Amino acid sequence: MCHHCDGKHDNPAPAEPGRREMLKSAGAGLAALPLLGVLSSNRAEAADASASTLGQSPFSVRAYGARSVGGRIEPLRIQRRALGPRDVLLDVLYASICHSDIHTVHGDWGAPRLPCVPGHEIVGRVIAVGGAVTKFRVGDIGGVGCMVDSCGECENCLADREQICTNGTTFTYNASDKASGGHTFGGYSDKIVVTEKFVIRIPSGMDLVSTAPILCAGITTFSPIRHWRVRPKQQVAVVGLGGLGHMAVKLATSARAEVTVFTTTPGKIADAKRLGAKEAVLWSDAAAMKRLANTFDLVISTVPYAFDAQPFLDVLKLDSTFVNVGLGEARGIHAHAMAFGRKSLVGSMIGGIAETQEVIDYCFARNIRPEIELICPDQIDAAYARVVGKDVRYRFVIDFASTKAGA
Amino acid sequence: MCHHCDGKHDNPAPAEPGRREMLKSAGAGLAALPLLGVLSSNRAEAADASASTLGQSPFSVRAYGARSVGGRIEPLRIQRRALGPRDVLLDVLYASICHSDIHTVHGDWGAPRLPCVPGHEIVGRVIAVGGAVTKFRVGDIGGVGCMVDSCGECENCLADREQICTNGTTFTYNASDKASGGHTFGGYSDKIVVTEKFVIRIPSGMDLVSTAPILCAGITTFSPIRHWRVRPKQQVAVVGLGGLGHMAVKLATSARAEVTVFTTTPGKIADAKRLGAKEAVLWSDAAAMKRLANTFDLVISTVPYAFDAQPFLDVLKLDSTFVNVGLGEARGIHAHAMAFGRKSLVGSMIGGIAETQEVIDYCFARNIRPEIELICPDQIDAAYARVVGKDVRYRFVIDFASTKAGA
Repeated sequence: MCHHCDGKHDNPAPAEPGRREMLKSAGAGLAALPLLGVLSSNRAEAADASASTLGQSPFSVRAYGARSVGGRIEPLRIQRRALGPRDVLLDVLYASICHSDIHTVHGDWGAPRLPCVPGHEIVGRVIAVGGAVTKFRVGDIGGVGCMVDSCGECENCLADREQICTNGTTFTYNASDKASGGHTFGGYSDKIVVTEKFVIRIPSGMDLVSTAPILCAGITTFSPIRHWRVRPKQQVAVVGLGGLGHMAVKLATSARAEVTVFTTTPGKIADAKRLGAKEAVLWSDAAAMKRLANTFDLVISTVPYAFDAQPFLDVLKLDSTFVNVGLGEARGIHAHAMAFGRKSLVGSMIGGIAETQEVIDYCFARNIRPEIELICPDQIDAAYARVVGKDVRYRFVIDFASTKAGA
Repeated sequence: MCHHCDGKHDNPAPAEPGRREMLKSAGAGLAALPLLGVLSSNRAEAADASASTLGQSPFSVRAYGARSVGGRIEPLRIQRRALGPRDVLLDVLYASICHSDIHTVHGDWGAPRLPCVPGHEIVGRVIAVGGAVTKFRVGDIGGVGCMVDSCGECENCLADREQICTNGTTFTYNASDKASGGHTFGGYSDKIVVTEKFVIRIPSGMDLVSTAPILCAGITTFSPIRHWRVRPKQQVAVVGLGGLGHMAVKLATSARAEVTVFTTTPGKIADAKRLGAKEAVLWSDAAAMKRLANTFDLVISTVPYAFDAQPFLDVLKLDSTFVNVGLGEARGIHAHAMAFGRKSLVGSMIGGIAETQEVIDYCFARNIRPEIELICPDQIDAAYARVVGKDVRYRFVIDFASTKAGA
């Protein structure tokens, strides 16, 4: 979801043991280290390593990324690390497009590291595991969200808030990579190696095509709904109806809250109601905004651009919270108006690993599925343009599965 | 503390009964209505009404105010209403100078209503009470803070949050006055009439000279300390060491929190420690700001001007709160940085009546006294200039008592 802190919080000491140390510590009983098994192969990997040895040393995989700031998303090759004892090798099946991917490629949040391979909503099949992995077996389905590592020792990590590790979360792409010494590459790629803690278990029987968006859009909106304990009959507002917004509507209504959507797009009014909102209001509808003053227990903003936030603070009840998960800058807030009701403006960024597992299990149990449009990798640029033009209902999912044998 | 909402939230229907209705409802047993008693007199009131009849009809009192935006504070005369059955007539002994008074007179928050008689930290002696008053007797000491009325029926009033009455709090000065149809006049005056609910009981034996500042500076900083449940050993930061800030230090240290002061004035570093802070830091000390990242459980900003708030969000711990009680606009906040730790920016404005009574009783029990400098009414202009120049340690109190017989 967010990579702003990358670099500022680099972990001074690599937490991962060296390859020699890993082999040593694994002991004789794990002589087959680092791989307990390897499943399937495809044309791309065949060019680099045989199926039986994949992951024993760094390997090249096909990916899709930008070679320049704002550049086209084009095929390229990147290196993945050799599997460590706690690593999982995922054969990527689906990766979906988050607006953050576009912000990053376009340099909206600072110049990206190049080449930039985005993708932090990833579903893949486990095709190899390190010798010490206990959470996955070959053939399982795993998911990767916005982060792939953290220190595991700071107060935030110990509080299951790995996404705000005080020693520096390693985000899934465009982040300093302790393992390679370079930067991380995301899910627009054929394969990815991730330490098992940061791989989410995808339950058997879950619809894989629509699962990836839950790993960012889902957790990002689920986390505040959980944190602020949304209860039945509470009034929840969702500002912006895109990938995050439509998940916020689904998740808040699943908690039996009464949801109002604020959108700038008249064409989304009907959609909002179909998704479960009891009302949808255009930001420009001053009469409705006035009528809704002091109404909401929680406002979840999913707006990815700078916007005038005060109107959405005005619709909050006393002692209530406007949570900005879209990371658009909240402009025009007014100290006096905020004081009039002890209203909070809060930032929230994705969720921790345990919470991400929770939202996956929650959505599976309730059959909550993101609404998606499946595309081929060569359609990513066109999809980016449609996301920017607000023409996505509601998440593009890049299909890597259909090119793979047995997928 | 704040008058921004004045006008927007005017109560459509006057809550106060008419004079005829009042006399009727009071019944035969209260034939002496509206006064149960009248105590003392002075030269100013003698010009308008005899001691025994004061309050039976609207009356003129001497006051100090501005006749133009930004104008000098000069003697003038204003009308006070006749006492209603639940009204208390206070002979003003002390009124202190809040930065809000200056903002209002200077038009910083919009053009004031003229003449503008500021003053919302008021201590006076009860010299008359309406027939239905039960909370005070003649001779008691009462305090008046930032508000003098509210609807009493909305959800905020019912939650003891009269300062954010959804039907419109009546602030002590520069607010629409339901009783007179004009605007309210504050405590820079010889006498004031206030409905008993909005008069705070000042305990017998309390130091009257230093009590007035508690009624705004005290409650404004006490309220967040209570609301966010500051506990022993917690780290509390106070931004700005003025009238509010020095009370924040005293109150937070009384809760056995460890307090750090952020000030722009080198000369206040030693003062901060004398007041109880364990550390005081200049905003310009970048090394200290960096060292203090992720340190504080609560940051209380008392800054009355627009300021760059992000550095003070950066020093918050995970899930902690920056509360802006100074009502200076919080500029330069960054959505990504706020998300990195689910940090809250919250407004808070004074406190309710019950909470104001609580802080008075709390300060009396612990002998917590604002630090004050006593001035005469003709020194108000000079005091304003010194407040703006940050040359006040830490509240100017206007002495009306010494001119009064028996005070």
